[in-house]
Amino acid sequence: MSSEFGRNIKLSIFGESHGKAIGCVIDGLPAGIKLDMEKIYADMARRAPGQDKYATPRLEKDIPVILSGVIENETTGAPLAMIIENTNTRSGDYSNIMTVPRPSHSDYPAYIKYGGKNDVRGGGHFSGRLTAPMVFAGAIAKQMLKAKGITVGAHIAKIKDVQDERFDKKNITAELLNKLSARHFSTISAAAQEKMRAAIECARMEQDSVGGVIECAAVGLPVGIGSNMFSTVESHLSSILFGIPAVKGVEFGAGFAFSDMTGSQANDPYCIKDGKVALMSNHNGGVLGGMTSGAPLVLDVVIKPTASISRPQQSVNLQTMTEETLVIKGRHDPCIVPRAVPVVEAAVAFALADMMM
Amino acid sequence: MSSEFGRNIKLSIFGESHGKAIGCVIDGLPAGIKLDMEKIYADMARRAPGQDKYATPRLEKDIPVILSGVIENETTGAPLAMIIENTNTRSGDYSNIMTVPRPSHSDYPAYIKYGGKNDVRGGGHFSGRLTAPMVFAGAIAKQMLKAKGITVGAHIAKIKDVQDERFDKKNITAELLNKLSARHFSTISAAAQEKMRAAIECARMEQDSVGGVIECAAVGLPVGIGSNMFSTVESHLSSILFGIPAVKGVEFGAGFAFSDMTGSQANDPYCIKDGKVALMSNHNGGVLGGMTSGAPLVLDVVIKPTASISRPQQSVNLQTMTEETLVIKGRHDPCIVPRAVPVVEAAVAFALADMMM
Amino acid sequence: MSSEFGRNIKLSIFGESHGKAIGCVIDGLPAGIKLDMEKIYADMARRAPGQDKYATPRLEKDIPVILSGVIENETTGAPLAMIIENTNTRSGDYSNIMTVPRPSHSDYPAYIKYGGKNDVRGGGHFSGRLTAPMVFAGAIAKQMLKAKGITVGAHIAKIKDVQDERFDKKNITAELLNKLSARHFSTISAAAQEKMRAAIECARMEQDSVGGVIECAAVGLPVGIGSNMFSTVESHLSSILFGIPAVKGVEFGAGFAFSDMTGSQANDPYCIKDGKVALMSNHNGGVLGGMTSGAPLVLDVVIKPTASISRPQQSVNLQTMTEETLVIKGRHDPCIVPRAVPVVEAAVAFALADMMM
Amino acid sequence: MSSEFGRNIKLSIFGESHGKAIGCVIDGLPAGIKLDMEKIYADMARRAPGQDKYATPRLEKDIPVILSGVIENETTGAPLAMIIENTNTRSGDYSNIMTVPRPSHSDYPAYIKYGGKNDVRGGGHFSGRLTAPMVFAGAIAKQMLKAKGITVGAHIAKIKDVQDERFDKKNITAELLNKLSARHFSTISAAAQEKMRAAIECARMEQDSVGGVIECAAVGLPVGIGSNMFSTVESHLSSILFGIPAVKGVEFGAGFAFSDMTGSQANDPYCIKDGKVALMSNHNGGVLGGMTSGAPLVLDVVIKPTASISRPQQSVNLQTMTEETLVIKGRHDPCIVPRAVPVVEAAVAFALADMMM
Repeated sequence: MSSEFGRNIKLSIFGESHGKAIGCVIDGLPAGIKLDMEKIYADMARRAPGQDKYATPRLEKDIPVILSGVIENETTGAPLAMIIENTNTRSGDYSNIMTVPRPSHSDYPAYIKYGGKNDVRGGGHFSGRLTAPMVFAGAIAKQMLKAKGITVGAHIAKIKDVQDERFDKKNITAELLNKLSARHFSTISAAAQEKMRAAIECARMEQDSVGGVIECAAVGLPVGIGSNMFSTVESHLSSILFGIPAVKGVEFGAGFAFSDMTGSQANDPYCIKDGKVALMSNHNGGVLGGMTSGAPLVLDVVIKPTASISRPQQSVNLQTMTEETLVIKGRHDPCIVPRAVPVVEAAVAFALADMMM
Repeated sequence: MSSEFGRNIKLSIFGESHGKAIGCVIDGLPAGIKLDMEKIYADMARRAPGQDKYATPRLEKDIPVILSGVIENETTGAPLAMIIENTNTRSGDYSNIMTVPRPSHSDYPAYIKYGGKNDVRGGGHFSGRLTAPMVFAGAIAKQMLKAKGITVGAHIAKIKDVQDERFDKKNITAELLNKLSARHFSTISAAAQEKMRAAIECARMEQDSVGGVIECAAVGLPVGIGSNMFSTVESHLSSILFGIPAVKGVEFGAGFAFSDMTGSQANDPYCIKDGKVALMSNHNGGVLGGMTSGAPLVLDVVIKPTASISRPQQSVNLQTMTEETLVIKGRHDPCIVPRAVPVVEAAVAFALADMMM
Repeated sequence: MSSEFGRNIKLSIFGESHGKAIGCVIDGLPAGIKLDMEKIYADMARRAPGQDKYATPRLEKDIPVILSGVIENETTGAPLAMIIENTNTRSGDYSNIMTVPRPSHSDYPAYIKYGGKNDVRGGGHFSGRLTAPMVFAGAIAKQMLKAKGITVGAHIAKIKDVQDERFDKKNITAELLNKLSARHFSTISAAAQEKMRAAIECARMEQDSVGGVIECAAVGLPVGIGSNMFSTVESHLSSILFGIPAVKGVEFGAGFAFSDMTGSQANDPYCIKDGKVALMSNHNGGVLGGMTSGAPLVLDVVIKPTASISRPQQSVNLQTMTEETLVIKGRHDPCIVPRAVPVVEAAVAFALADMMM
Repeated sequence: MSSEFGRNIKLSIFGESHGKAIGCVIDGLPAGIKLDMEKIYADMARRAPGQDKYATPRLEKDIPVILSGVIENETTGAPLAMIIENTNTRSGDYSNIMTVPRPSHSDYPAYIKYGGKNDVRGGGHFSGRLTAPMVFAGAIAKQMLKAKGITVGAHIAKIKDVQDERFDKKNITAELLNKLSARHFSTISAAAQEKMRAAIECARMEQDSVGGVIECAAVGLPVGIGSNMFSTVESHLSSILFGIPAVKGVEFGAGFAFSDMTGSQANDPYCIKDGKVALMSNHNGGVLGGMTSGAPLVLDVVIKPTASISRPQQSVNLQTMTEETLVIKGRHDPCIVPRAVPVVEAAVAFALADMMM
């Protein structure tokens, strides 16, 4: 059981929310990749808390410090280690969760698994903060992919009952993906964004939370990445995506809607376009037989509502083994979906870069 | 890229649909597991084609032959190798797919990836027939799990617009799962089964096909299997499930329906029941923070409609690079969902046994 | 713990000496490798028992049967599975080794580890016969390497006190290696071969056995294969070499003799030769900092004397826990070193091909 | 290609000699291991440069800082990250090695492999300094092993022509190993130590260097650790040992001396001792059929003479492609064998702990 991902490029993530530092080691990067640090900071700022309203994309306190593997912004081929020091830690807020587990959090199984030895302050190693190194690694992967003409981008497809426009699966442009990737609250439709913000604000007012769906795409992929059986593109991507806290479902192309279709509706016929083989539709989301088909890769990820809500909830005291009402203190995000968008992009980019090495 | 799965128990699957034999090597099984061969045959018969109407659970022509790793039906601790000889091969039916790829199949990306060197007869290594060794390995895993009090079972939750009853996620019994696992067309409701059969027959009449959703559960799991980050139960299970041909989505617990819920609806509160910690609901499908929570593991898998349909479809000739109408000959299953049920059970059982080693 | 090797190309070996069949799965071979089956048979014949005096390089009863992954002698990119049926099994000869372990064999630790469940007939999965699939895989690897201009070959450097000539480490030709690889009793010096045969015959007469040292080299390797830390060429090669039964030591270049040298004697200076960088000596055996240096790769492997000797030996009865004199029946090879030469070549070739993918 | 080792506990090492920091991530440690930090510091001090004459076992400037995975000196089950900041960096001394590779160093193949992008200051990621995190990880592994009654220790068996006493392979005590592990210049015989120091001093005077042999043992191991084929104890240990810079050979038990013995001399007979199975000799060094036999594990490792010597050496200028005389400046250790002893112990301890998880 490990906090490590990858076959060719290995990403090992470490740290606890309220420990000295969090970070990662990326082992297996080729030498000579030029890192655009501003772009890395920008992606990390999209994930950082409280960034939506600020103009500056760079949050001083969350600056990643590269310890090894890079000289003059270029990879050396040696393992790249990065740390982010933890500064703003309010451990006191979490004093009672060791014995009274928060519903829908990792607290209870972690307590049993680690015999009470795990760091519970701020979620410890289970904290959403651990997605920051994932975004860092994904930002590097994006730059590797960009050099091969591949672009990854995502948007919020749905929050509660508010839907954004959906990608036209067979016609997605790098321009659109880049535009979406530059936003802190990424939607295709501005109107949908307004309604989503309202839905989130409404949940906050009610001391409640909401989740949603993120739609992610990658364009420019060559045909034939991945393989069948246990090396499908879907296997590799889902494996990393289910490592993002709160992700509870992953589907490719039409996904669960395939169950409402017939084969004649679902199949993607081929045609010749500009002298090349092309797909006339893309219900399969760019993956056939586990391999990329040349059409855009399109997938959905569902994020459950933030588990930490301010309302009193029923739980149990693990030491006295009695039922207890739990009130979670501290400020909590009523919806993490907007901040999860760059994490989903990062996970997809990293897994693709790993498969293409 | 590989046809191998597992961290502690490694399953390596080989073979092509129309080659000499298909089979697998299972490396890392402990010594002393007693194999109930009749149960293994029974699971394999559920997956085998044309079995629905037959009384006998044992299809002579698809008998797995164990070459190593077992003495007197007990594992020795050495790698277990198994082969199934291919006897009924009608290669002629597939003569034109080398140059004219079947829509929604692996043909086109495989042609590009392997430079035309891959075996295309009957789907080659991409054939659904390759799920037979997976069912074999899963049947052994089920017996390992059973010895630990764990039961895995699945049913067809949906075919086209016909829905079966759903599991009551927090109250699933081993008895129900065993009953479902014994059926060749596994549904909870007999009425739903009738309607599903009708929907499939209807698709067959129209030279079309349908897909569906399979709901799978496991009960008896201890708390704390799996870990967070890249070793979540969801990551490991989805990774093997997306290795099953035609699977295009995987969700745990409420899955995509989480996006319609608020945190106060979605969270699973704790209570004390019979002196033990219990969950009052199970929207998380038995997994919290990537670890088993003690509640039943519940997941959905969507199977797309069979790609091989008899209707004429548009495709392209990869050698002449011209558009061409393709008519797929041979008999094809208008719905593979019933036969996919034991495959999903096998995949879940194998991944769980692997995580528990 | 597994019978599997490789990072990019995975070799999974299965079978027991007296079971139905032994074999292997090679997962990750690229499509389009043309297999010269005669060369594969020739290498396997060098390893096969009783082959030294026969003219035919092909032993009918040990023919490998390829089940998958190859069409018309060309790899398809799908896993290659191969089996060799076991025909000549004299299980009776081993009736008492279950309870009385043979000294210097795996019997005792295997009995403890597998709780008496492991197959002990003929050594079971621990038998030297399991090196046959390794030679098969190595023969394919040799053909992959040959296409890149790389040649692997080995000879018997020493048996008891008889020494063969040693490679001139900085000047080894593909011609010499090919010549050595074609021999059933491979030495550089014909005179040494005669003396070695006499030493082996002498051991046979005395119901005893002898071991020896095999020197193996590879030429044509590009500079920079491997890496430092845990991916050194030495790590990868030693890891597979210590998987060959009876191997108890591996050294590269001067190896243990480095401890008698000073730095000024041991260092390999650089010069310019034909406009290229060259090494003036090759004490490091072609590996510097874990990476290939461009000089020939040279390594030694020591094979301990055959553990099965006819003389009475002291052992214990594991059931009665009393001391017992053991007499091992059956015919045993007084020296396996000549037959181990192709196995060492195969292991080195496979590990190099794996590192170069 | 990676700087990562381990199957169950993964050690990922990062850093360059003259970068910001070096360190490691240890992923997969169980929760609840109590760390004796003083013992960790003591092992690290044995490896640190210039420590032989100091009384204090703790070198302030090389203090490892634990970033995650430990609370109050106890592991939490989350990845343990550790860094050591680099303070004493004299980059100027290495200014000309980028173009003129040092003989017997990684410089030349690294230049080719990384296209001149790798960090060359002080050896970069190839520096012997990277063994510090290995010693750190090994010190933790030793504490895990100690809790199971297993002790690892090593001594300098040979430097140039000076030999220490050798272990009596079948009778090694934990007391002896602990005593050896506490020494900064570890030998069994005090007289041998004196002579070794003299030999090293002599090499220093002559601007030369010497290597040697380290003998390492582990006692208290249960029977049956490891497996045959590609999971032998020898494979796993050699794989990590060849990751230590300057190691060029590894042998188990009698090792290369097996080639001088007959089977009747080499075989280790069994007897009953105190009601238990015991080996009457231990030429196999505690490993039979790849598994631990219950006898002490004994292995030798050869360390080549320090490659950096002050004498002028012939090399080439990689940019002008002309021959050039190289004079390496800076202070260099004429013999790294004493400092390599704790590294060998650490590697053996880590690999054993990994195999026993």
